Amino acid sequence: MLAINLKSYKETIGSNGLKLLEASEKIIEEYNIDIILAPQYTDIYIFSSNSKRVRIYAQHMDPIQSGAYTGHILPEAIKEAGAVGTIINHSEKKLNVEDIEKVINIAKNLNLETILCANNSVVAAALSKFEPTYIAVEPPELIGTGIPVSKAKPEIIENTVNMVRDINKKVKILVGAGINSGDDIKKALELGANGVLLASAVTKSSNFYEKLKNLAEGFK
Amino acid sequence: MLAINLKSYKETIGSNGLKLLEASEKIIEEYNIDIILAPQYTDIYIFSSNSKRVRIYAQHMDPIQSGAYTGHILPEAIKEAGAVGTIINHSEKKLNVEDIEKVINIAKNLNLETILCANNSVVAAALSKFEPTYIAVEPPELIGTGIPVSKAKPEIIENTVNMVRDINKKVKILVGAGINSGDDIKKALELGANGVLLASAVTKSSNFYEKLKNLAEGFK
Amino acid sequence: MLAINLKSYKETIGSNGLKLLEASEKIIEEYNIDIILAPQYTDIYIFSSNSKRVRIYAQHMDPIQSGAYTGHILPEAIKEAGAVGTIINHSEKKLNVEDIEKVINIAKNLNLETILCANNSVVAAALSKFEPTYIAVEPPELIGTGIPVSKAKPEIIENTVNMVRDINKKVKILVGAGINSGDDIKKALELGANGVLLASAVTKSSNFYEKLKNLAEGFK
Amino acid sequence: MLAINLKSYKETIGSNGLKLLEASEKIIEEYNIDIILAPQYTDIYIFSSNSKRVRIYAQHMDPIQSGAYTGHILPEAIKEAGAVGTIINHSEKKLNVEDIEKVINIAKNLNLETILCANNSVVAAALSKFEPTYIAVEPPELIGTGIPVSKAKPEIIENTVNMVRDINKKVKILVGAGINSGDDIKKALELGANGVLLASAVTKSSNFYEKLKNLAEGFK
Repeated sequence: MLAINLKSYKETIGSNGLKLLEASEKIIEEYNIDIILAPQYTDIYIFSSNSKRVRIYAQHMDPIQSGAYTGHILPEAIKEAGAVGTIINHSEKKLNVEDIEKVINIAKNLNLETILCANNSVVAAALSKFEPTYIAVEPPELIGTGIPVSKAKPEIIENTVNMVRDINKKVKILVGAGINSGDDIKKALELGANGVLLASAVTKSSNFYEKLKNLAEGFK
Repeated sequence: MLAINLKSYKETIGSNGLKLLEASEKIIEEYNIDIILAPQYTDIYIFSSNSKRVRIYAQHMDPIQSGAYTGHILPEAIKEAGAVGTIINHSEKKLNVEDIEKVINIAKNLNLETILCANNSVVAAALSKFEPTYIAVEPPELIGTGIPVSKAKPEIIENTVNMVRDINKKVKILVGAGINSGDDIKKALELGANGVLLASAVTKSSNFYEKLKNLAEGFK
Repeated sequence: MLAINLKSYKETIGSNGLKLLEASEKIIEEYNIDIILAPQYTDIYIFSSNSKRVRIYAQHMDPIQSGAYTGHILPEAIKEAGAVGTIINHSEKKLNVEDIEKVINIAKNLNLETILCANNSVVAAALSKFEPTYIAVEPPELIGTGIPVSKAKPEIIENTVNMVRDINKKVKILVGAGINSGDDIKKALELGANGVLLASAVTKSSNFYEKLKNLAEGFK
Repeated sequence: MLAINLKSYKETIGSNGLKLLEASEKIIEEYNIDIILAPQYTDIYIFSSNSKRVRIYAQHMDPIQSGAYTGHILPEAIKEAGAVGTIINHSEKKLNVEDIEKVINIAKNLNLETILCANNSVVAAALSKFEPTYIAVEPPELIGTGIPVSKAKPEIIENTVNMVRDINKKVKILVGAGINSGDDIKKALELGANGVLLASAVTKSSNFYEKLKNLAEGFK
């Protein structure tokens, strides 16, 4: 599973983003892998309207029900726009622990999947208690560096797999930070991860299709 | 000018929201007034794609340029989705003062209009120094109560007009909180306001067209 | 164990607070129980200078090392002022999960004890993974109500004890919210708690000694 | 006027901080200048108990009245501990604009002075509307660099003086960021400032007295 977080990169908003969507659809056909794209909120509708097999996620949503919350992200609006899941607690959009539990429960009630982020193995283990669909471990010091966690700190992946499994047998485990090639992915999968979470490696790429192809090779 | 903040009310997301858009277009034709709708981020694209004269705003945007900001609201994405402006610093989405100045400057560079919110006259006067398109004064204790600021606290409107004009002659002044009828609007305009900012009075209405018609009468 | 959070109540700042300290010392002598007082930061020094057996805690500290953090709570300053521990993640001062782990580790390095707060059993279980000295479960809807959690929602205490023990055998478990009498405490201890966390029941009392005496009876 | 913000530097907590206090008292006697020290909250009591002419400030306080605010900074506790004022809205402890107005009004009611911080001239002008005792302008990009604002960006000081005076004739104007010597201070005063706000230049100094002496020369 390849999850791509488009963050606030302008390279992948609007019509440019749709090119990434198109390339992702091709890769799914060729490699039969699972791809998630998490665009800006404003792009969820147009992405999901144009996707066939790519699953569209939000990058965050607020732990709220319908109400007087100006500027907040209503989970029901995320769902209505066509998203099938959301990232939660990314290191660039942290939540307090009470809100993490609340928003995961709201997601479950709406049948939205969740990628819940953690900065290390211990935090991943603690958060797995909330039973998200995926736990993603990303050491913040490697995010955006191009130094792949699977090579620089393989023990983080191994520890996460072991510690999370102690608490929660079912949750799928993603790893991220610095992942840049199919080889980095292969290594992550060998260490027990179920998939990866990427961002700039793809969004900043000059050729989305070629980049995704290289990454997809890691799943063979 | 009638600005309607759809907040996180589920009554006006997706296709329901488009009915409010349609009713607003009709009112503009009949009354020749200016209407702004500020939907959830996820609805900006579909609202702006379907609007003729209604101007679509975001409810907030973050003081950021393109970059690694997961879950944030990129101003360029707001613009790309078709919004022509944004609310800033609503009492339900407050910003620190440094970020207010930053995001107003970003909006100006992108030719986005701004409705900058203040909770009282003194704050409105201070913030008018940043030269937003509109200053909106809303006493938080009246928001959502149905007790109209223009009748319950007319001195807030008069003071705001006087104090803001001392610092900034050009900015247009909106008032909000509890505004519920054409009569409340008439009173606000008489006190020197250039328009009003509403939310639940419209979004919770069982008949958008009739509600807007009643409000529009206040501008005659 | 009786932990009393003085919050931002003016009734227990400065010299008034010292009267509560004095009453607490008397109760410790008479009942041989363990009492913690968590005053305003500004009072930690004078409380710890005057305490004999009462243990003085901070109400919060920031996950920081010495540095350029204006207005923050430096853990080393808390220690230097004489505190022996700190409350963390109270529902009135929530932290993101990454910072919770960080500040617990900083506390351990400084030999400071920690009372880590959780709003329900599942959150308590997750957070017990971080190995604080105490986990305190407090349903926010009962805080300050005078409706004791141990009587209104005994299942929260039982579930917390069971779920926390699954993950962490050593951490001591406190309960709070609405605890107002020795009888409420007795019930909490019977359900498996190791102690209680209180606030307004004591700080708003007209006679600190009599109130504490009534509470201490619950430990017999 | 020389205001020194001790931030969260461990070099100036507890008994080490008292040495800085002592050096400051000597400088006041020798140079007859006005010195403010803003220590950690935990040190306010012991600093103010030991000060003769040095004025003790808090680094921040919360916009609250007595109540259930765990971990917050109660203004009345700041006052009770002996502080005579507080820094507000430092770039390391920013507040939303509504809270800035609230906390300044609370300070006035308690007869506490205020140093209200702004990151540039326009923000300083806007905030001067709230009538703090002092406005301090500090370009964040120079804080802690040792590159003095008075030499690197003299126009910021001139613009601030002019723009603030347009809105508020009475407020005293401080400047900060990179100020490191008496010469930097002399230049700031020549440009129209009434004093300076410093931090690491003093707190990281190996000899508080000699450092302060060098700075005090700037006021001659």
